[in-house]
Amino acid sequence: MGIQIGVDLGGTNVRVATVDGQGTIEQMLQEKTEVEKGYEYTIEKIIRMIEKISEGKEIDRIGIGAPGPLDPRKGVILSPPNLPGWEEVSIVKELEGYFSVRVQLENDANVAALAEAKFGAGKGKESVFYITVSTGVGGGFVFNGTVFSGAHGYAGEIGNMIINPNGYQYSNLNKGSLESYASGTAIGKRAMELYGIEGGSERVFELVSAGDEQALRIVNEAIDYLAMGIANLAHVLNPEVFVIGGGVMNAGELIWVPLQERVSDYLFPGLAPHLQMRPAELKGDAGVIGAALLG
Amino acid sequence: MGIQIGVDLGGTNVRVATVDGQGTIEQMLQEKTEVEKGYEYTIEKIIRMIEKISEGKEIDRIGIGAPGPLDPRKGVILSPPNLPGWEEVSIVKELEGYFSVRVQLENDANVAALAEAKFGAGKGKESVFYITVSTGVGGGFVFNGTVFSGAHGYAGEIGNMIINPNGYQYSNLNKGSLESYASGTAIGKRAMELYGIEGGSERVFELVSAGDEQALRIVNEAIDYLAMGIANLAHVLNPEVFVIGGGVMNAGELIWVPLQERVSDYLFPGLAPHLQMRPAELKGDAGVIGAALLG
Repeated sequence: MGIQIGVDLGGTNVRVATVDGQGTIEQMLQEKTEVEKGYEYTIEKIIRMIEKISEGKEIDRIGIGAPGPLDPRKGVILSPPNLPGWEEVSIVKELEGYFSVRVQLENDANVAALAEAKFGAGKGKESVFYITVSTGVGGGFVFNGTVFSGAHGYAGEIGNMIINPNGYQYSNLNKGSLESYASGTAIGKRAMELYGIEGGSERVFELVSAGDEQALRIVNEAIDYLAMGIANLAHVLNPEVFVIGGGVMNAGELIWVPLQERVSDYLFPGLAPHLQMRPAELKGDAGVIGAALLG
Repeated sequence: MGIQIGVDLGGTNVRVATVDGQGTIEQMLQEKTEVEKGYEYTIEKIIRMIEKISEGKEIDRIGIGAPGPLDPRKGVILSPPNLPGWEEVSIVKELEGYFSVRVQLENDANVAALAEAKFGAGKGKESVFYITVSTGVGGGFVFNGTVFSGAHGYAGEIGNMIINPNGYQYSNLNKGSLESYASGTAIGKRAMELYGIEGGSERVFELVSAGDEQALRIVNEAIDYLAMGIANLAHVLNPEVFVIGGGVMNAGELIWVPLQERVSDYLFPGLAPHLQMRPAELKGDAGVIGAALLG
């Protein structure tokens, strides 16, 4: 039996790794994506990285996690904001043509969901909803070890869920969408627009720690929207556990304690005692581990 | 091989049926539920109905669809508003004890979802989200022929999804929940409170057909909330098809045409062309057919 290769293709870095049966990274290579040099350049680079890491070994299959939107069934990356210039790139066909093995493509949140469900904070659970709160808000639903892509690859695009139709809007998302309030970008933008606080979400969290009332108001609003989003998902799917990761969650107790309370407030009384929310465990490695698990 | 029995336990009627391999009802018995006589009385009645319909035949298994909340894993009905007086009723244990066959319990929307996915408007589709818009708003997600109950039986409780945190509220649901705007009850209540229109949602739809502006405003609001709810589900699960039933949808084109447009408006541009929404086909029989399919 050959090895399984995971490729984590991000806007900044590409990582290629082999992962053992316990979800531990055996070997990993990392290079800059260099999006500005065009997708052919980056795909060439990925091919070289895969050749290097698999030297002397047989490859069984290759999994790729990449920013959405993408079509996992066709294996095509569709113009993601984080990979400017990549328009309908058939990355699966290119790699399958080169390596003559099965290649699978999934969006980055779904791939991270898979890793967390199998080897991270969702280990041993039948159903796991993974949420990442970072620059954007994304998610992925894993049931019995399989990630749910949806019929056209749009499952888990929870950042675009409408929570407040009269609410705030940015970028191409719906007005009052979850991401427009709860993402790191939203926290930074809201703080700037409402109170002139510069420095993005990191600065906002620093100010909250220092007791700043305005910053606290912004963060509380974000937590409240995130809580409503999670409650909505609980009433749609009732997963055994929510695993929540992403840079914004690094703010720690400041977010976790009120978040837990508020989600409970929004749940049916019979469901509230069953609520389980856990911090993601695999952090930055979830993408490349999940990619290796694909297929 | 014996027969499979479906039981559709509603607040008003109980139906017991056998269904063939094509989802067609072979035989059916219907009686009044008579909730006011207590759950023991009704369970006795169900037992008699099952005995009657299975006379001279061997029973393979029994499936029950009942109003939620209920716990499908434990087989217990938990104080549903539509079955007053039923508090923690172990209906599965009672029927298993009597008939010595496997008995399964699911909530009514999930059971209808199963029937529509297998033999109704979702036939042949891998993933189906069923929505019922009637007194309340409920739903069920079927993937590869299996209905998703959730870890504690709360999957598909989409009526409690928050769409507008500053919005309207009734009963024990969340403020601005989908059901608080889009259900038949909500349409009737809104019409009464805002414009003094009596007669519930049916009267409101009559008035819309007659060109009444106020009634139209109420219905448009309901459609808009339903559209946001569907778009949210599409961004969470991206099912191949949405199957939508329930009394409110009987208003026909009045609802369907604007609903389709508005859902598309709320979807990612790449997802909008893939949107498929179909009217439920099995109507009142979905419950008893789906119950027979359980397990």
